[in-house]
Amino acid sequence: MRVVLAVGTTKTAAIDGISAAGADPDAMVHTPSADAEIVSYGEPIRAPVVPVSPTGTPTPALVTRAVRDLVEFDLTVVDAGLAEPTGAPTVTVGARPGDDVREEDPVATAHGAFEAARQFGRALPDDAIFLGESIPGGTTTALGVQAALGEREGSGAGAGVSSSLPENPVERKREVVAEGLAASGLDEGAAAGEPKVALRRMGDPVLAVAAGTALGCLETDTAVTLAGGTQLATVAALLRHAGVEQRLELATTSFVAADPSVDLDAVADSLDLSVTVTDPGFDEGDHPAFDGYLAGEAKEGVAMGGALALARAAGVPMADVRDRVLARYRALPDLS
Amino acid sequence: MRVVLAVGTTKTAAIDGISAAGADPDAMVHTPSADAEIVSYGEPIRAPVVPVSPTGTPTPALVTRAVRDLVEFDLTVVDAGLAEPTGAPTVTVGARPGDDVREEDPVATAHGAFEAARQFGRALPDDAIFLGESIPGGTTTALGVQAALGEREGSGAGAGVSSSLPENPVERKREVVAEGLAASGLDEGAAAGEPKVALRRMGDPVLAVAAGTALGCLETDTAVTLAGGTQLATVAALLRHAGVEQRLELATTSFVAADPSVDLDAVADSLDLSVTVTDPGFDEGDHPAFDGYLAGEAKEGVAMGGALALARAAGVPMADVRDRVLARYRALPDLS
Repeated sequence: MRVVLAVGTTKTAAIDGISAAGADPDAMVHTPSADAEIVSYGEPIRAPVVPVSPTGTPTPALVTRAVRDLVEFDLTVVDAGLAEPTGAPTVTVGARPGDDVREEDPVATAHGAFEAARQFGRALPDDAIFLGESIPGGTTTALGVQAALGEREGSGAGAGVSSSLPENPVERKREVVAEGLAASGLDEGAAAGEPKVALRRMGDPVLAVAAGTALGCLETDTAVTLAGGTQLATVAALLRHAGVEQRLELATTSFVAADPSVDLDAVADSLDLSVTVTDPGFDEGDHPAFDGYLAGEAKEGVAMGGALALARAAGVPMADVRDRVLARYRALPDLS
Repeated sequence: MRVVLAVGTTKTAAIDGISAAGADPDAMVHTPSADAEIVSYGEPIRAPVVPVSPTGTPTPALVTRAVRDLVEFDLTVVDAGLAEPTGAPTVTVGARPGDDVREEDPVATAHGAFEAARQFGRALPDDAIFLGESIPGGTTTALGVQAALGEREGSGAGAGVSSSLPENPVERKREVVAEGLAASGLDEGAAAGEPKVALRRMGDPVLAVAAGTALGCLETDTAVTLAGGTQLATVAALLRHAGVEQRLELATTSFVAADPSVDLDAVADSLDLSVTVTDPGFDEGDHPAFDGYLAGEAKEGVAMGGALALARAAGVPMADVRDRVLARYRALPDLS
């Protein structure tokens, strides 16, 4: 089994109140680089931060790494627009950091990165991959893509994305998306059937790389499990608009499933997704590192839900996963 | 266990008759990119070649990958000056392709890449790594570095390096090195105690990255096994000139040990190396893919000797390794 992580950045994350994927905006830009290092090596090795939320909740990368300690899987990280160096080995597909989605053309590399990622996906020799992401601000750009595609019109913009914050700043995201649509000269749904246009005008480079990779895999009979929450559901929407008709798999966490701002069943129905939800049992973990998750922080990311599904499929008890998360957590360097 | 591979290029490889690490010079420039993909994925996925010698002997990368199928190890590929794209994930340390060693300043990035690789090595959290290389033409630049350092003066330049060709073109290499020394304005031994000067003026980017990585690891008590032949012995020489005094480990193949153009015992004595030699038993393999190795082609590369040592240490019979090599060989795409 191979886990492919698309990691990158969008300046959208710097908008006040949008994301908790970092202690503050200065730290947040390092989060994807550090997440890639944590899954690759167990700890940050070049990135100067351990990604935590403003309240100190550790990154989901730690969970994915803990599972990797228990269930062997190959890991391939794709540079989907990193803004800061990483010591993790990465595949290059020509992606660049994304600009603020309120700009006219925030992802100028979307077409090229999508197609290079598609070729990469086509060339992968695996029978099956899990596909995850790390990009602060990514739920806002996911909402932007949904709006450009005209997905979820009936349920109202904002119903379609989760948040790394306990209180999903839905109104703020809607305002940002509305500004982005206006700057791009797009009406809602104007990019229906044109996923690359939606990605370039209203998305981020991680969505472009994830969607391209998934499409290339599916074209060559490599099974894809979308390992994540509403950003990966948005990848599913992009695949639908690229003409993919087969049923798709999504593996996410119980925290996304419990998110009151997302109707996961409705998303699954509307996109024909087979959804696997895994609960790591953090409520039985009795450790402050888990408290943020129980309060609704982070929720998902860095293929956490997929990794938990792999652990469960391998028969690894969630208590073992939790123990391993805490061992990895305690061994983290103090970079504060 | 982590295997770190430094992969890159030097225009020195294009000198007629220097290297067999590719079917022809046009193919050779893709060899390190393809080698990295073979160890990462089992086959080339972006590189347009399967590396073979002019007579069709398959790359040692296939052996390292076969061992990886049998003995789990983490893999980290460092881009040490690739000239063509690779689909393998790589760590960036600022290395650029090396120029012809007959130029005045063939590795302008040597200092920066050495130091960035050293930081990378310092940051690696592992207890132990194996360190290998892929760079066509690399034995000639290794000879150049030895000359610049003043190593092996007593035994005459050329005694210190092996070859991917059955008949080591020692005279040609000596001429090239003499031209390089003249162009760089260096006498033999002029860079003694100055490893970065030797690398920049007479080396290649892979030696710079390998030496920097090894130094950083050793500085932080990560054990290093130099997994290769005379190029990795040259890394040992560079470490000596950087002040490293501890005994060093080198793991190589029986083909290097049997090379009449190298006195491995003398090299080990002179550099205080503990040498492990592993014979994959290709003479019992009874397959054309092995014949080139038995005739003295390829011999080593892409950490082959280290991988074989890992297999032996794990109790894997060499017959199983050979079966796995052939299974991987038969599954290779026909890119000719």
